Order: sequence, then structure tokens, then C-alpha cells
Amino acid sequence: MSLLRGRFKSSVSDLMQRFSSSLEVDLRMLDEDIEGSKAHATMLGETGIISAKDARTLTEGLDTVRGELASGAWVPGIEHEDIHMAVEARLTELVGPVGGKLHTARSRNDQVATDLRLWLRRGLGELDLALRELLETLLQRAETDGHTLMPGYTHLQRGQPIFLGHQLLAHAFALSRDRGRFQDALARLNRCPLGACAMAGTPHPIDRQRTAELLGFGGVAENAMDAVAARDHAQEVAAAATICMTNLSRMAEELVLWSSAEFAFIRLSGSFATGSSIMPQKRNPDAAELVRGKAGRVAGAFTALTNLVKSLPLAYNRDLQEDREALFDAVETTRDCLRIMAGAWSTLAIESRRFEDELQGDFSLATELADDLSSKGVPFREAHDTVGHLVQALEAKGETLSALTPERARSFHPKLGDDLESLLDPRKAAERRSSYGGTAWSEVKRQLSLLRDAL
Amino acid sequence: MSLLRGRFKSSVSDLMQRFSSSLEVDLRMLDEDIEGSKAHATMLGETGIISAKDARTLTEGLDTVRGELASGAWVPGIEHEDIHMAVEARLTELVGPVGGKLHTARSRNDQVATDLRLWLRRGLGELDLALRELLETLLQRAETDGHTLMPGYTHLQRGQPIFLGHQLLAHAFALSRDRGRFQDALARLNRCPLGACAMAGTPHPIDRQRTAELLGFGGVAENAMDAVAARDHAQEVAAAATICMTNLSRMAEELVLWSSAEFAFIRLSGSFATGSSIMPQKRNPDAAELVRGKAGRVAGAFTALTNLVKSLPLAYNRDLQEDREALFDAVETTRDCLRIMAGAWSTLAIESRRFEDELQGDFSLATELADDLSSKGVPFREAHDTVGHLVQALEAKGETLSALTPERARSFHPKLGDDLESLLDPRKAAERRSSYGGTAWSEVKRQLSLLRDAL
Amino acid sequence: MSLLRGRFKSSVSDLMQRFSSSLEVDLRMLDEDIEGSKAHATMLGETGIISAKDARTLTEGLDTVRGELASGAWVPGIEHEDIHMAVEARLTELVGPVGGKLHTARSRNDQVATDLRLWLRRGLGELDLALRELLETLLQRAETDGHTLMPGYTHLQRGQPIFLGHQLLAHAFALSRDRGRFQDALARLNRCPLGACAMAGTPHPIDRQRTAELLGFGGVAENAMDAVAARDHAQEVAAAATICMTNLSRMAEELVLWSSAEFAFIRLSGSFATGSSIMPQKRNPDAAELVRGKAGRVAGAFTALTNLVKSLPLAYNRDLQEDREALFDAVETTRDCLRIMAGAWSTLAIESRRFEDELQGDFSLATELADDLSSKGVPFREAHDTVGHLVQALEAKGETLSALTPERARSFHPKLGDDLESLLDPRKAAERRSSYGGTAWSEVKRQLSLLRDAL
Amino acid sequence: MSLLRGRFKSSVSDLMQRFSSSLEVDLRMLDEDIEGSKAHATMLGETGIISAKDARTLTEGLDTVRGELASGAWVPGIEHEDIHMAVEARLTELVGPVGGKLHTARSRNDQVATDLRLWLRRGLGELDLALRELLETLLQRAETDGHTLMPGYTHLQRGQPIFLGHQLLAHAFALSRDRGRFQDALARLNRCPLGACAMAGTPHPIDRQRTAELLGFGGVAENAMDAVAARDHAQEVAAAATICMTNLSRMAEELVLWSSAEFAFIRLSGSFATGSSIMPQKRNPDAAELVRGKAGRVAGAFTALTNLVKSLPLAYNRDLQEDREALFDAVETTRDCLRIMAGAWSTLAIESRRFEDELQGDFSLATELADDLSSKGVPFREAHDTVGHLVQALEAKGETLSALTPERARSFHPKLGDDLESLLDPRKAAERRSSYGGTAWSEVKRQLSLLRDAL
Repeated sequence: MSLLRGRFKSSVSDLMQRFSSSLEVDLRMLDEDIEGSKAHATMLGETGIISAKDARTLTEGLDTVRGELASGAWVPGIEHEDIHMAVEARLTELVGPVGGKLHTARSRNDQVATDLRLWLRRGLGELDLALRELLETLLQRAETDGHTLMPGYTHLQRGQPIFLGHQLLAHAFALSRDRGRFQDALARLNRCPLGACAMAGTPHPIDRQRTAELLGFGGVAENAMDAVAARDHAQEVAAAATICMTNLSRMAEELVLWSSAEFAFIRLSGSFATGSSIMPQKRNPDAAELVRGKAGRVAGAFTALTNLVKSLPLAYNRDLQEDREALFDAVETTRDCLRIMAGAWSTLAIESRRFEDELQGDFSLATELADDLSSKGVPFREAHDTVGHLVQALEAKGETLSALTPERARSFHPKLGDDLESLLDPRKAAERRSSYGGTAWSEVKRQLSLLRDAL
Repeated sequence: MSLLRGRFKSSVSDLMQRFSSSLEVDLRMLDEDIEGSKAHATMLGETGIISAKDARTLTEGLDTVRGELASGAWVPGIEHEDIHMAVEARLTELVGPVGGKLHTARSRNDQVATDLRLWLRRGLGELDLALRELLETLLQRAETDGHTLMPGYTHLQRGQPIFLGHQLLAHAFALSRDRGRFQDALARLNRCPLGACAMAGTPHPIDRQRTAELLGFGGVAENAMDAVAARDHAQEVAAAATICMTNLSRMAEELVLWSSAEFAFIRLSGSFATGSSIMPQKRNPDAAELVRGKAGRVAGAFTALTNLVKSLPLAYNRDLQEDREALFDAVETTRDCLRIMAGAWSTLAIESRRFEDELQGDFSLATELADDLSSKGVPFREAHDTVGHLVQALEAKGETLSALTPERARSFHPKLGDDLESLLDPRKAAERRSSYGGTAWSEVKRQLSLLRDAL
Repeated sequence: MSLLRGRFKSSVSDLMQRFSSSLEVDLRMLDEDIEGSKAHATMLGETGIISAKDARTLTEGLDTVRGELASGAWVPGIEHEDIHMAVEARLTELVGPVGGKLHTARSRNDQVATDLRLWLRRGLGELDLALRELLETLLQRAETDGHTLMPGYTHLQRGQPIFLGHQLLAHAFALSRDRGRFQDALARLNRCPLGACAMAGTPHPIDRQRTAELLGFGGVAENAMDAVAARDHAQEVAAAATICMTNLSRMAEELVLWSSAEFAFIRLSGSFATGSSIMPQKRNPDAAELVRGKAGRVAGAFTALTNLVKSLPLAYNRDLQEDREALFDAVETTRDCLRIMAGAWSTLAIESRRFEDELQGDFSLATELADDLSSKGVPFREAHDTVGHLVQALEAKGETLSALTPERARSFHPKLGDDLESLLDPRKAAERRSSYGGTAWSEVKRQLSLLRDAL
Repeated sequence: MSLLRGRFKSSVSDLMQRFSSSLEVDLRMLDEDIEGSKAHATMLGETGIISAKDARTLTEGLDTVRGELASGAWVPGIEHEDIHMAVEARLTELVGPVGGKLHTARSRNDQVATDLRLWLRRGLGELDLALRELLETLLQRAETDGHTLMPGYTHLQRGQPIFLGHQLLAHAFALSRDRGRFQDALARLNRCPLGACAMAGTPHPIDRQRTAELLGFGGVAENAMDAVAARDHAQEVAAAATICMTNLSRMAEELVLWSSAEFAFIRLSGSFATGSSIMPQKRNPDAAELVRGKAGRVAGAFTALTNLVKSLPLAYNRDLQEDREALFDAVETTRDCLRIMAGAWSTLAIESRRFEDELQGDFSLATELADDLSSKGVPFREAHDTVGHLVQALEAKGETLSALTPERARSFHPKLGDDLESLLDPRKAAERRSSYGGTAWSEVKRQLSLLRDAL
């Protein structure tokens, strides 16, 4: 609010002025707006639509406006409907009537479409940086702590012993796909709408390829109506952000679980958790909870954008003004959540011996016996059933697999009983799962180097 | 329902059985399940994990099961929790205990993940076909009817005269991006989870690359836990479908508008609209309305999937069983809507002269005068203001631009008045907008060939 | 931003501080927080848990803090996690250690839950006011312009002649139900959580009924854990707002349609539309478009809240901090949209003769003939078919119902032909539909008085 | 599918036929359709619009049609666009041309609106039954097991010792509000649209109050256009279902957590969990996971309906045909989930001594000391800080509160040290929280009787 001069009043027509104005959110893409205008003026000069001198006057004037805004020497007022009008008005104050040439061969429709795409290009760049930061953090933790033994869960039930690194890299691969989604979205939207004008192009002999080049776009939006009317790129970015946040919500859920007294597997650092002066054991996993909660916020942005665009006839409709607030928030929230998670993961403590003893003799090792039988030619179902009987017999006596002797094992199946100690060592069990993509440490290391290469 | 033997009863435990069972929706990916099992058995044989003979017995037995299912000779019963168990049970009835070897080195977690991806590959293939069909239809209409004059709308207000082809291709470019989104999603998900087993891989010396190759996957899911736990690909496909349907809803909205007595621009054929025996002028645009309505259905699928996956810890959780119904429906609904729109567009009648007369002298031609002035060096803002005064003067007398004479024009600005007839001819005005991506017919044709090349 | 002292820095731990802090959004419920604290202090004094003197010191100190905040004499800093801590800290600076007694027998969990409900009570009050304002406006327009003849649409096709008042009151009844939904939500949430403490109550002999009474609540939240953990009331309010906005989006869509050159039925006033200096006929219906677009924003809030709360175990989780921003925005956006629509409706011009001529002889009058026949004992289906033939015969000759003579009518059915002029007068046709709830003017007036009584 | 005669073919026009047809989903409201038609026919007879004899013929014929459908003697074919046309066609076959009188003074628009409301009335009735069943179950468990000691959690960290009954009743109060929401929705929608006809009423002298009475409605929909166009009641029911499912997802999350090896607090019965023959300790909490997953499905229905209705101009549009599938599914899914949860809760085993020992001396008892100090006049903040120091001193030595002696306590504050044994007994601590709504057993019992009275 403080970036604007004037105050919105409370009568209905003032309410309407506030409704109409997009100045506040537009200010967030001011740099993009100035850049776009400079490129447009340069192209107008190069093509002779305006004189080279006029072009220079405009670009220099635009730099002055930007400087004034940055320093606070000039503050746009709420009487301007949007940032584009405010900038042009100030420019004309500074350079005189030639300022009125800036809007030759363009309209607010293509201008705002261009600003939005430029903003997204920057925003997605920051987001990718944050994604790589979190990936880097996970890879480092996998290297330093990845050999920690833990139960692999399905249905939140202990299934098989695994190494922590295996689980960390599962998240890393999901985040890698998130990177891919944002990159695909960026490649698709990185086409310059400028010169589409209101929706139909212009009679002026503009050079849209040149404008696109000056702004670093990968190409030109091919159809002028599509260029101003389309918002599928906004939806796509919000969808990718929603998916990324859903992935983060799963990681956050695990941090919350593992921080509980019951799991007691990790301890978030003080910067990312709130301690209690009176209950020192209590370490509220705030960072993880907030990230989890913000997944809802970003999902809301996709719903908002989809609902917004639905059933809008071409070309531009004023409804589209609503796109930016949801979209900017989705991109920035996701970026911040990634950074928070990187911070949380790089500073948390892992109770590396938490599950070492508990997994000795645990029934989650039963599949080791079944796999052993099946590798000796016993059909899997039979092997599975046999071990089932064995385990039930132990459980009936309140025993664990630690109580199993070779003789007792053989009484259930003649091919059982060898190498029991090795088979039932949880760490060895994890190492044995060395099939491609398995939890064995060699596989974790292979994946680590694969992921590191991609960074 | 009729594809299952047995009936779900109504007591709570029966309700739970129905809840637990995914048989009904699983039947839709039966082919994928059999293919997956055959590839797995083949790989087990090739790697020597089972004998070549056993492998052959299993693959042949699986073909028999598939044949029985197709012919109705065997009907899975509701006592089976899912399709995978049903098939294995029937296989074992047919081939004996060797059937129990099929599940060696795999689990339901990786099996169901594989089936889903195989189904999506097929579903996205059909969807792409439907997208190309609609694109082809739009291109044809643009060729045959694209030169029809019409108002270009912003805010549903007439802005500038355009050619229908310009608007049709705006939709075509949006659909092209939809194709790209589905292709990107497919490329990302086209990696084989089979062999990931429960979440940690297996001690058996499986060859996952071989299984992936047999199933035509582009590669192997690198991390076993990620392979069974990830559903970001399900979200991504649902998001792409939602975006595509949002695009279709905009096209559908236009069909509804243009079918109204007020716009009277098109007339849907009888197959895609409901006439009224008593009101022959009434032609309810049902196809367009239904497609528009189904945009909501598909958006609902994305919400459902996102809400479903949110906060689920790794690896597999039973919640994920809910993914298929929403996802299958989203893919098939989108495919059908594309086909419906192709049918509607290929058979509708266009009132090609609807706007010819109405656009003569229409104030939406005023920008022609402003652009003309600005091309003669008058700053755009000044040109714009000058024409504004001119138009207001005409309007005050209840006149249109048709009443403008060169003298009268010059009284507003000395550089005005030449070529008025040409400037104010709506068809010529559209042709003049020949900048890259503009509505000029040459530009429409350029885009047409670009789009046709991409098909 | 300007309401806070200090600036968030950009390092990760500072990012986390910003993440954790809810100060900015909390400031919007500062009044509620002070009121809650005063009531709590008063109750503590009345029950003797603290002395009467201490209670007075606290309530007076709280008033001072509120005054300081209002005047800007004191500005909370970002070092405070939330508004509650900031207020208590300032209070203690002002009144000394007794400030530390304020938090006796309460926790932030019940405090924030109380603030939120108090805010909602006020917000829903303003929303109801705005609803009544729009209702009042619609009723007035129905009175002054309700007798305007227009086509009733189904499928955006002209169905039957109706009076504008009929359609206006259709919207009014929907808005009345919106009022009901907000009132029901308010009644359900209007129970005081204060005294629930962290989740389990307190050993102190508090009097929760008294606190509730002081704060004007309708009662006490019965279960302490539910009192701090529940957010179904937040979802309910957001759902009611989403539904209300969906209703408004339908009304907005009609304003957009009716403002088009094709419908040309209304003209929004300059305050609620943007004219074009160069195209005076163009009147962009911005108010309607923006309201329509904001329906997406509010729908996003419900998605966000639902996704947020989903799967959260009891009792309080930090995720819930995210509830306020979405909820406040949903309530305030809906309120503002209602006011905008009231403004738009109270100032728009209706082209009251727009459809008078066009509906003469229009085939949408065909049902008049069918209803006439059916009232003479001809089975409805037969009557319907007969008139269908008649209309087709006219249409085949390019004629309308105006060409129908009694003789010609009788040639289709002997019971046809009387009173043709009256039957086919669109205004009389509308008047004839005088069944309960029909479009006849008498019915419009009946509904008007019903709705007015409810205001 | 099996309930329909004929098969949809695969060409585009057949696809359109399938698209258009709502027969499959309509069959689910066949009873409502017949009831509505019978009431309409009765009213037509009573008002003399048709003869009493005709009315009797129609109502008896409708009963015959219903009987034929129930027995399978007659199967509607896909040539009928919807169930209404199919029934009328069959009726006319049975009773002759008089069948054509049934549709006098009504249209499909008001007919389908009536059927939907009648269906919802029944569906919401079943849903309320299921809600009461689950409430009853929770109350019973609270009575039999509610005195079980457990940690109360915030942030999934142990906060204070509570009784299980306190937490069960927190869920019960949330479900009570769910009941209220459904009841409010029902009261609002329970108004009869029949007689609204297409949108404008009818010239026939119908008696809508009588039809409403015959169908058991609470009144008549006041405005004919609103009666056929409104779907806010559909959104409202879907919103209430979404909120209810969100509440259930929280309960389900707790069941999943408590079933884990780490929490080990409950054990779902075999009917609601899947055991593993090979890992007998593993008890996958399928019922809870599936309910949690279905929360997404229902949330998707609200998104779908909101997106569907958004921006639809009045009155009826074909899009609305899509409302039923999502809505029926939301109501039935919620009903089933409630029943599943009732079944799960009524059969699960609670490890009643799970936390008894663990909570002895646990730091979550520290607030007992602070509350004690504060009740002796020490300002809460000071009390809190004092106990913080005490606890840190203990923790530094690796001790728990069990190590605290009166002397040691007094060394931190002179008012500490009395009644330590009682203060630090977790069960007594819970009992002490006897403020209104607290966890004390007396309070649980008070709430129990309150809730029981409401059932």
C-alpha cells in the first residue's frame, strides 16, 4: 500500500476504482514493464516507425522513470488504472509529447501479456534455483546420513528395512520431475506477445522477432488473438506449483511424524522449530507444518485460475486482471517453501541409531526368508505361505525372528535354515536389495551420482 | 457392475469389502495388467530366475486368462481384492502351482503402478488423436470459412474487424499447447516401475531394463520407493486435461453465444444441437453446453487427486487406490469432448454475411484512422485523442463513420481525409493488420501452414 | 507492511521468521484480540483468579495498547511471532509484571480461535449488510423497470416472453438463500472457545459462560479440544462465499451479455464500465467482468482451506495459521463484489423497448398456442405436435406467427384460431403466465412484497 | 449399463447421443420421477385441468411403469434422451393418448429440478442416519474406553495428558455440526419447483401448493425462473459433504497414526484392516486410508459443481445435466464413509495401558507445576519461566519430573514443592482440568449426555 500515492476512499464508486485498479499488484512487474517498453521503443526506432532520436528519448526517459520509482522520487497515484498508464504519463511529463509515441503499434492487452510472461520467466528462474538448492541439500544428507537404517513404510506400517538415503532420493526424484515441469512450462510460455496489439495485430511495419530477441524470448507468439487471450500458461505454472507443493507436503508430513515422541527419528533445529521453555522435549515442527499448510494455498491458486478462465470467450476480458495475484503468490510461495525445506533439512539432527535395535528380529524381515526360498526355486506363493506359518508360530509364543534357529526353520521347510544370521540382519537385508533402484547402498550411490550430474 | 460375478451386500462389512475392492475400475486396465505380467514372466525366464519353460507356461496361461475374460468364459468375483489377485488365482487354476511363481520379485505396489502408467500411455495416445482430429477440423474450417468477416471482441464488445480464421487459429494454437502438455506428461511418466517391488527392490537378479523394453517404456523408474509412491504424474495428466478442458470451455462458450438469436452467427447441425418441434428457430447448442459443463468435471478430478495425495508419507498408502477413477474419467472425458467439438465444428453452418453490413461505418473502425495518423508521424496519444473527438462529433448527431467526408475529417486533423473509403472498409481494415500474427488473410494462411506442418 | 516495525531479511532463517510470523494478517484482527483479552481479564477478576485491581489494570492497559496502535504511537515489531505476544509484551511494558497474569488460564490456541470467530462475526455482519443492499437495489429495479418485456432464455435461446422483474427476482431469491447460508454459518460458529486453553481446559476455576457473554457469543464451545482444533466453520464460511460468488458470476455474465452490441439491452454507467474515447459505443462492462473473475478467487479460498485442514490430526497444528488470509479475503471480496453489483445495478440504463418489436410474432410465442389447445382438452403432446406443424409451415414460407390468420390456424386444428391477437401478444402472453411463481406482473409484485418483508 | 437396453456406438454422432443422454444417472432417481409425476397428475385432476378419470389413469399407469422397471419387464432404451421421456413414452404405450396429458403445465426443466430435490431429500436422510450411527458409536466408545489415558497432541507433539473420551467427543461435536449443515441445506432446498415449467410458469390454473404437499415438500419455490435455474443447493450439499469428509479425514489420519508400530495405540479389526500372512504384526489400516482418500473425491465434486455453474446465465442450460453425477456420488460416498468409520470404531481394540507408564514424569506435566504456581498468585509468565528453568535443570541431568523432590522444587520457587506426587500424576492432572469443556472425566460425561440428548 505504501508504494502508492493517495488513498482509496470507501464510497461505492471509490470501491469500484480500487476494484478496477491493478496498480498494487502491477508494481511487482514494474521492471518487466519498463524492459518491455524499452524493447518496443528500440524496435520502433530500428524499423523507422519512429525516428532513432525519438526511440532514444523514450528508452532514456523510461530508465529515468524506473530510477525515480526505485528511489521513491516519483510515486504513481491511484488515479492511474494500471502501471502501464502511470509509466506512460510520467514519461510524457519528462520527455514531452514524444512520450505519446511509445504506445504506437501496441495495446495494453499485449503489453500486460508480455509483462506477465517476463515476470514468470524470472519467477521460474528463482524457483528453479530453490529447487536445486533443496535437491543439493537432500543429496548431501543422503551422502552423510543416507546409510542410516530405518523401516520402510507402507500404510505407515513397517514393511522392510531400508536406508534413509533410499527415501531421501525418492523425494529427490520427485523434485527432479518438478524441475522438469517448470522447465516445460517455461519453454511453452517463453514467446513474445508484444505486437499482437489489441488482438488483431497492426498496420505498422513492426518487427516482432526483433522485440522478442531484445527481451530474450525464445520466439514470437504466432497468433495475435491467442497472444492476448491465452492464460493456459498461467494455469500450467500454477498446476506445476501445486504438484510441487503436494510433493513437499509429503516430505513435510514425514518431518512432522519423525519429530514426534513416538517416531523420535529427527530433531529439527531451533530455526525451523519452536521449542517450549517449559517443555524442552517439545519441538514443534513449525517449518514442516507451515509448508504443509501452504500446499493448500497454492492448490487454491490453481482452482482460482481455472475457475477464472473457464468459459471466457476470446479475446481479452477484464476478468483476466485477476490472474496475477494468484499466480505470483503461487510461484513465490513455492519458491519460499523449497528454501525453507532446504534450510530445515540442512540443519536437522538424525537419530541414526533409533531403529537399529528395534529392527533386530522384527517381522518385517520375514520377506527375507520368503525371497530366500523363492530364489531356491520354491514358487513365490508357496514360499510366502510357508514363512507365514513360521512367523505365526513364533508370534503365538510371543517370540520374534531372533528366536529362530536353523532347526526350527527347517521344520517349516527343508530349504530354510541356512544363513539365518545373515538373512535376518536388517542392515544386510537392506544391502541385499541391490536390484536396479533398490535400497542397497550401491544403488543409493548410483542414484546420487545420477542426480548430481543433473544438477 | 455386470462384468463382475457376485453382488456386494449391504452390511457394514460388505460395504467395507466393496470399499476395499478396486476390481471394477481395475477391469479397465486388465489388458495392461496382463501385458505387464507377461513381460515380467518373460524377464524372469530370461534371467534364469525361473526356468524358460515356466516362463512360457506363465505367458501362455496369461493369454488364456485374457481370452477367457474377453469371451466371458471366466468372470472375476468380488472375493478378490483387486484384478491382480483375480488374474493370478485364475492363472494358478489353469497352470497349477507354477502360477505361484509369477509374483516372484514383484509386489502389487509396483504392479499397479505399472498398469496405471501403461493405461495412461494408451489413454494419452487416444487423447492426442482426438486433439489432432479437432485441430484438423479447425484448420479445414479456417481454410474454407476463414475469410468470413466478423467483429473481434474484447470484453464481449466489438473491437476491430477480423477474419474468422484468425479466431479459429487462436483456438488451434491453444490446442497445440495442450498437445505439448500431454506429450511432456507422457515423456515424464513413461518409465517402468516394475521390479521396484514393495518399495525397496528385491534380492533377485532381475533385469528391469529388459522388462521396460518389453513393455515399450522409455526407461526405468530409477528409485524403487519413488516408483511405487509417486502420483505426481497422475496430477500432471489431470492438470493438463483440466487446462485443455478450460480451453474447450472458451470455444464452447463462443458456440453458445454465436448460436443465440442475438449473435446469429452459426447454426449447429442437428446431431450436435436439439431442435424444438414447436420452436423451429430454437436450436439448443447442447454439444457446446455439455462440453462446457464437463470442464467442471475434469477440474474436479484434479482437485480430487491433489487433495488425495496431499500429506501422504511415502511409500504406498491405500488412499492411492482412489487415483484411477478420477484420472481415467478425466482422460476419457477430455478425449470425448475433443471429438464432440470436432464433430460440432465440422458440421455447423456459418452465416458468412452476418456482420458484413453491420460493420460498415462501425465505430470499431475508428482505430483505423488513429493508426493512419500515427503512421504519418502524429504521436499515438494525440492521434487517438483526435479521432476520439471526431467520433464523438459523429455520434452526437447519430451518425456513423459512413457519414465521414474527407473535408469533415480534415477539420479534425489536416493529415486526415485521404483514402477514407479504403481506410473504413472493414475487410480492408482486417487485411491491413498484416503484422506478424495479425488477422490479415496472408497471416492466417501462414499460421495455417505452420499448424498443418505440426500435425 | 507499513504497519510493522522492522524489515524481514532475506536469509533462510529470516525467511523462516517471516514464514512463522502471522503478524501482518493478525493485525487485521487486532480489535478482536484486545476485546477478547479484556473479557478474559474481566472474568479472571470476577472469579477471583486474579484480584479485581489486577483485572482493572489489565483492561485499562489493553485499552492503552489499542490506542497506541491506532495512533501509531506503538508499532509491533517483527520479533514478535504473532499479535498476541506483541500485545502482551507491550502491556507488560506499560503495567509491569501484572501483565504476565493476563495469560492465566488461556493459551494462544484458544485465543486465536476466539479472535477468528469474533472477526468472522463482524465480517459476516458487513457481508449481510452488502447482501441486503444488493437485494434492495434489485427490488427497486424490479419495481421501476420490472415490467420491461424481454425474452426468457434457456440454453441462451429465446424461450418465452417474460418481464425483466421475473428475472431480477430469480436472482433476488438466490441471494436470499445466500443470506440464509451466512446466517446459518454464523449461528454455528458463534460459540466462544476462550478457556479451552491448549486443548484440555484448565485447573483454574474459570467461568467460560461469563467470558462468552461479555464477548456477545451465543454460547460456549462445549469441548476444549474441538474448540481449538476445529476449522469446519472456516470452510463453511468460505463455501457460502463461494456459492454466493457463483450466484453473482451468473448475474455478472448476464450484465456482460446484455452490454454487448448484439444484445444491446443495458448500458452500465460510467462508474462501472470503461468507455473508450475513440469508440464511444464501446462500454467495457468492467465491474461485471471483475466480479465474475473474483468468483474464481473465492472458490480458490475454499479449495485452499479444505486442502489445508485435510488429514490434520487433532488438536492444533501450525498449518492452521494459514486459515486467516484465505478466509478474510473470501469474506471481504464477496462483500465488495456485492456492493459493486449494487452500484452497477442502481446506475445502469435499461433499453426498455429493445425487445418489444422483435418479439412480435416470434416463434417463442408458439407455446401460447399449445397451452391454449391443451386448456381446451387436447392432450399436451398432441397440442404440441399440432403447433409444431403449424410453425413449420409458416417458417417454410419465411413467415412468422404474425402472418397467422384464424382460418389458417383452424386448418391445423379446429380448436385453434380464437383470440389469436391476444394469444400472440407477447406482453399478454407474459401476463397469462400467472400461476404461482410465474412471470405475470401480479406474481412479480407478490414476490416483491415477500422479499421486501424479509429485508 | 446393464439397466439400459441398446448399446452406445462409437461414431461421433453416437458419442454425441451418449453425451446427451442422462439416462444412466437418471435411473437413480426413477422413483422420484414417478412420485413427482403422480403428484402432478393428481393435482391436474383435482384442479380440473384434466378429468379425475384421466388423473387416475395416469397415476395407475405410472405405478405400472414403475413396477415394470423394477421387475425388468420393461427396459428403457438409449433412444430416449432422458428418463422423463422414457417414462412418458412407456406410459402412453400402456394407457393411450391420455398419457400425452401428463406433461400439461410442466416442462422437463421443473421436472428434473423436482426429481433432484426429492433425491437429495432421501439421500440426506440416509446420510443423517449414517452420521447418527457414527455419533452413537463414538459415544459408546467414549463411555466404555473414554477414561483411557493418552497424550493430548498439538503439532503432533505431546502436550498434556488427556482422556481418550475428550478426543472422541471433539470429533463428535464436529460431526454434530456436520449434521446441522446437512439439515440446514435440506431445509433450504426442500421447496417444490414443480409447476415452474420452462421458467415462466403456465397459464393453466395449477395448484403448486397442493403438488408440494403431496410430495412432502416444506413449501413452493417462489420464483419459476429461480426454480429451474438455481443449483446453489447442489453446491451447498456438496460443500457440506466436503466439510464432513474433511472432518472424517482428520479422524482417519489419527486411526492410521495410532495403528503404526510407533504409536501402537489401537488395532483395527480384521474387517477394516488388511493383515499380512507373512507379517502378522502388520495391520494395514485400509478403512481409514480409503476414507481419507475419498475426502479428495468429494472435494472434487464441489470443485466440479462450482466450476460447472459459474457464469451460467439464467435460466436452464444443458450444462446443468452434469450436476447429478457429482452430487449423487458426493452424498453416497460420504454416507458410506460414515458407516465405514462407525464399523471401524465399533470393532477396533484400544491398547488402554499404552501410555500409562510413558506419561509418568513426562515433561508434558510441567504445565501442572506452572498452573499450580499461577493459582498461588504468581503471574503466569513468571510461573511459566520458573518451571522452564526447573525442567531444563532436570533435563540437563537426563532426569524426568519423576526425579523431582519437594526440596529441589522449592529451590526453584518457594511456593513449589507441595503435593508433587498428586500434581505429577498424569491421571490426576487430566482430572484436574475440570473447567467447562476440559478433559476431566466429569466433563466428558457431561458432554456425553449432551450429545446423547441431541441424537
